[in-house]
Amino acid sequence: MEIKVMKRVLDRNRDMAGRVRERLKSSNVVMINMISSPGAGKTSMLEHICHQLGNKIRIAVIEGDVATDRDAQRIKKYDVPILLINTDGGCHLDSNSIDIALGEFDLDNLDVMFVENVGNLVCPSHFDLGETFKLAVVSTTEGDDKPVKYPMLFREARAVVLNKTDLVQYTNFDYSSFLSALREINNSVPLFELSCRTGEGLGNFMEWLLEETGN
Amino acid sequence: MEIKVMKRVLDRNRDMAGRVRERLKSSNVVMINMISSPGAGKTSMLEHICHQLGNKIRIAVIEGDVATDRDAQRIKKYDVPILLINTDGGCHLDSNSIDIALGEFDLDNLDVMFVENVGNLVCPSHFDLGETFKLAVVSTTEGDDKPVKYPMLFREARAVVLNKTDLVQYTNFDYSSFLSALREINNSVPLFELSCRTGEGLGNFMEWLLEETGN
Repeated sequence: MEIKVMKRVLDRNRDMAGRVRERLKSSNVVMINMISSPGAGKTSMLEHICHQLGNKIRIAVIEGDVATDRDAQRIKKYDVPILLINTDGGCHLDSNSIDIALGEFDLDNLDVMFVENVGNLVCPSHFDLGETFKLAVVSTTEGDDKPVKYPMLFREARAVVLNKTDLVQYTNFDYSSFLSALREINNSVPLFELSCRTGEGLGNFMEWLLEETGN
Repeated sequence: MEIKVMKRVLDRNRDMAGRVRERLKSSNVVMINMISSPGAGKTSMLEHICHQLGNKIRIAVIEGDVATDRDAQRIKKYDVPILLINTDGGCHLDSNSIDIALGEFDLDNLDVMFVENVGNLVCPSHFDLGETFKLAVVSTTEGDDKPVKYPMLFREARAVVLNKTDLVQYTNFDYSSFLSALREINNSVPLFELSCRTGEGLGNFMEWLLEETGN
């Protein structure tokens, strides 16, 4: 019974995701669904993106959080349109919330909408938001085994960011184990190694992002 | 509708958790439900616990993982009874799986059963497994804002472990922000600061664990 219900929820979510996708397409907006563990660096990535690309492309942000507006406050200073969705205990965003959220933006004056999903490697991977693509963010301090332990995200992501490369020397993170784990799940996904703290590697990622979003 | 279903699932889970709790009580077994983000250090904690306390108390482990037996393989070498539950995409363990799992152990010859939940700060907090208490594990590299951003776990945990203290000097982690965030959510929970990598701080935690489990 529980599985049947889950299927119904996922079916409804997929239908609404289709509607979101159409709205975005008709306004020529690319939507990127950012997924990671808590504290892997999604908000820091967004801060760099807003700072470096804010004068090149028209950016908006939807912040998903279980509680608090802390991430939204961090983004607010970059002067981009931003909407916060507090899930109040919910473990992921869904397409219905995104559909409602889109009504708060002037879509025809946007190029890229970033959605920062709830910090969670599991549930957000199951719920299509109507995004153009998913971006997986993982950090060296989480260990090198994440791709095989949470395969769905790494299978579906358009790109993988490996953050906190500045800390790798102080950890047991084994780069070749990580790479073979990732390639076992997805042998073609682009991988960007970078440090949001030092800024190392961000340039390559920004170039890719501009190209991938057609800007 | 979705909320009603969720309530029914949670009600069923709570009923079965009661059954688990009775079985544990009748065999005098303490069950600890370990919850953290992916890569915060649950398995490393368990390795230290098995190594340091394996000859003082009779330990068993239930490993919950979305996929793979990697964590179970790491624990296997400590020669404790271990059972792996692969949730196959599921984002948390539930009391029904635990009830079935208990049948695989000789409960009367155990003191403490550790359950390593799926790496996720959100969903595992909502599902009572019938555990004696929850142990929250968080690491410095995840940032200092986790308690307020994921309040449910920190509200319910019997103790909080702050792992990876050896890395704090290389991060932006602000200890006083973390502490005030934690105290805002739970002003009395014991906090153990430690590093599974260097071993620093583990002694205090082990003493507390022995005392708290009545050993």
